Amino acid sequence: MRFGIHFVPTLDPSEKSAAHYFDECLDLCRLADDSGFHSAKITEHYLFPYGGYCPDPVVFLSAVAQHTTRLRLVTGGLVPAFSHPVAIAGKLAMLDNLSHGRLDAGFSPGFLPDEFDVFQIPLEESRWRFEEGVGAVKWLWQSQEATWSGRFHNFGPIRLLPRPYQLPHPPIWIMATFTPALFEWSGRQGYNIMVVPYISTHENSANLVNIYRRAWRDAGYQPGTEQVQLSFHCYLAEDGDQARREAKKYFEDYTGKLRHAAEAWSSRKVDQYPGYENIVRAIQANSYEHILGRTMALIGSPADVVQQIEIVRSWYGEHEATVQFNFGNIPFERSRRSLELFAEQVMPRFVDSSAAASR
Amino acid sequence: MRFGIHFVPTLDPSEKSAAHYFDECLDLCRLADDSGFHSAKITEHYLFPYGGYCPDPVVFLSAVAQHTTRLRLVTGGLVPAFSHPVAIAGKLAMLDNLSHGRLDAGFSPGFLPDEFDVFQIPLEESRWRFEEGVGAVKWLWQSQEATWSGRFHNFGPIRLLPRPYQLPHPPIWIMATFTPALFEWSGRQGYNIMVVPYISTHENSANLVNIYRRAWRDAGYQPGTEQVQLSFHCYLAEDGDQARREAKKYFEDYTGKLRHAAEAWSSRKVDQYPGYENIVRAIQANSYEHILGRTMALIGSPADVVQQIEIVRSWYGEHEATVQFNFGNIPFERSRRSLELFAEQVMPRFVDSSAAASR
Repeated sequence: MRFGIHFVPTLDPSEKSAAHYFDECLDLCRLADDSGFHSAKITEHYLFPYGGYCPDPVVFLSAVAQHTTRLRLVTGGLVPAFSHPVAIAGKLAMLDNLSHGRLDAGFSPGFLPDEFDVFQIPLEESRWRFEEGVGAVKWLWQSQEATWSGRFHNFGPIRLLPRPYQLPHPPIWIMATFTPALFEWSGRQGYNIMVVPYISTHENSANLVNIYRRAWRDAGYQPGTEQVQLSFHCYLAEDGDQARREAKKYFEDYTGKLRHAAEAWSSRKVDQYPGYENIVRAIQANSYEHILGRTMALIGSPADVVQQIEIVRSWYGEHEATVQFNFGNIPFERSRRSLELFAEQVMPRFVDSSAAASR
Repeated sequence: MRFGIHFVPTLDPSEKSAAHYFDECLDLCRLADDSGFHSAKITEHYLFPYGGYCPDPVVFLSAVAQHTTRLRLVTGGLVPAFSHPVAIAGKLAMLDNLSHGRLDAGFSPGFLPDEFDVFQIPLEESRWRFEEGVGAVKWLWQSQEATWSGRFHNFGPIRLLPRPYQLPHPPIWIMATFTPALFEWSGRQGYNIMVVPYISTHENSANLVNIYRRAWRDAGYQPGTEQVQLSFHCYLAEDGDQARREAKKYFEDYTGKLRHAAEAWSSRKVDQYPGYENIVRAIQANSYEHILGRTMALIGSPADVVQQIEIVRSWYGEHEATVQFNFGNIPFERSRRSLELFAEQVMPRFVDSSAAASR
């Protein structure tokens, strides 16, 4: 089983500067690279303490690439609606080269109405801009003479530069949360998926992952070769009760910032985003105690977390767990301790023979 | 006097991969950082061997930041017409934080018609998109509550995240070549300028720099505090004749690739780009021998180059010379030798007391 480190900056400048935050993240990435983590992932968001320190995942991961030698670098996820596919494909190809082929290119339709408003892109177009954007980026990577005639973009024949390092193209991942059509589409396209269970229920999310796996199989891809990342908040201490006690305020800080960023949904309803009009309520309903009780975060002693991962695996089957060690305004020493305990006492329990052979 | 290292990748994948090229650039940057260069700069271009390996300067400079501790990091220049100001301001602020305040934010109106065609932006709008984009980026950095109502963008009130490291905002630079109105505007706005003399004449370029300095002074800024970068191809060998002989094919390779990228100008004429319809002819007219004869490149022995810099300084006054050591498909060993000779035997001749005091 694989594990990744996942960053969603959730900070206001009054709490910690971006320079300070990035320094800490790079430290965590070096530790993760040294201790056998498989990947590092960061989101694209704007304007709000929720995610806003990273409007461009590629810029952050380009720095990470210089401090690490093994970590896969995951954009989780770029929003095609906000940029031109030639710009997206080009900067991702730069990162793929700067890291000698360690890019995992993740995309997201985006979901914060205020971001769409700033870019003057109708939320109603989001899904179509997303699908066209991902398709155009993939085509620019694959083709030496790419022509595109879409609803939003027209160009070609052109040859994208630089050419990606990984041929025919870097692996493509899709960020999916609530929307069945998106899970189904991802499987049909042969893309990997990144899922965030904690704002839903395991029942729902596992059902959606099954829809994805079925679409993958039905489209003729080799069953079992699809890849699924599940993201979790993670906080460890030697003593489980201490961990649960300490993590509460950071988790609530995090979800409070997410609620604030998503507030605009309380006055919107968009067909392509079924259920999002209730997202603020859904986040609120998933209290810290509820999250702990339903094993929707990895929080506790190392032994607790081993057990939690086994429970999660019983819901979803094989997956890569990508864990957030520095969610909310968490002090660096605490996130580093969590990472170290995770690497030393949790990960060795999940070494399987295939992973051991490939190291 | 200050010196910088300037990158314009001019490579086709059949010559050298982007991974290989970037590795070499990072090596040169480490050397430059260690040997007292002031800055590293890279262009934004697409699709052509001329510049196409770097569609996103910020991604490259984010990597450079991790290998260096002193170099200023110069985007030379970002093209606001191709992205949203919130995206540009955000990624630049990330770089400013990732480098602890070493960003020099350079912008360019762009000049390759094929790039504008791909992005479906009329060349006729270029100048206005440029001015609005630079203005909006600056305002997003300065204001905690930025509102913008422009011809191309409308947003706000919003607070850009992350906040830049340098306050009130990172230094702003403008790439200007032929267009008097752009030199004049840059001075009036209080921005620094980046000039590329070799596709014009020293007479012309020096005249334009004077227009800039006069506009700066007339707008009420302190005379002498304006900053000017001049970019030059640079190739050194212990023996001057050997250097001039060896550099010829790399220089011609470079200008051949520029001509190819600029070919579309032969069938265009745009009021905001006076003279560009003749750019291919102008590049062709500036043969290697002409360039050498008019001191429009820094090529020769270290003693030759010292003299050339003095001649250039007599044309333009105080400036930072930003030099390209790996133009065209130049072998790495040659560009490294040029850099080393430049650092060891040229730069010490231009140490002035103020620079010495600040080191």
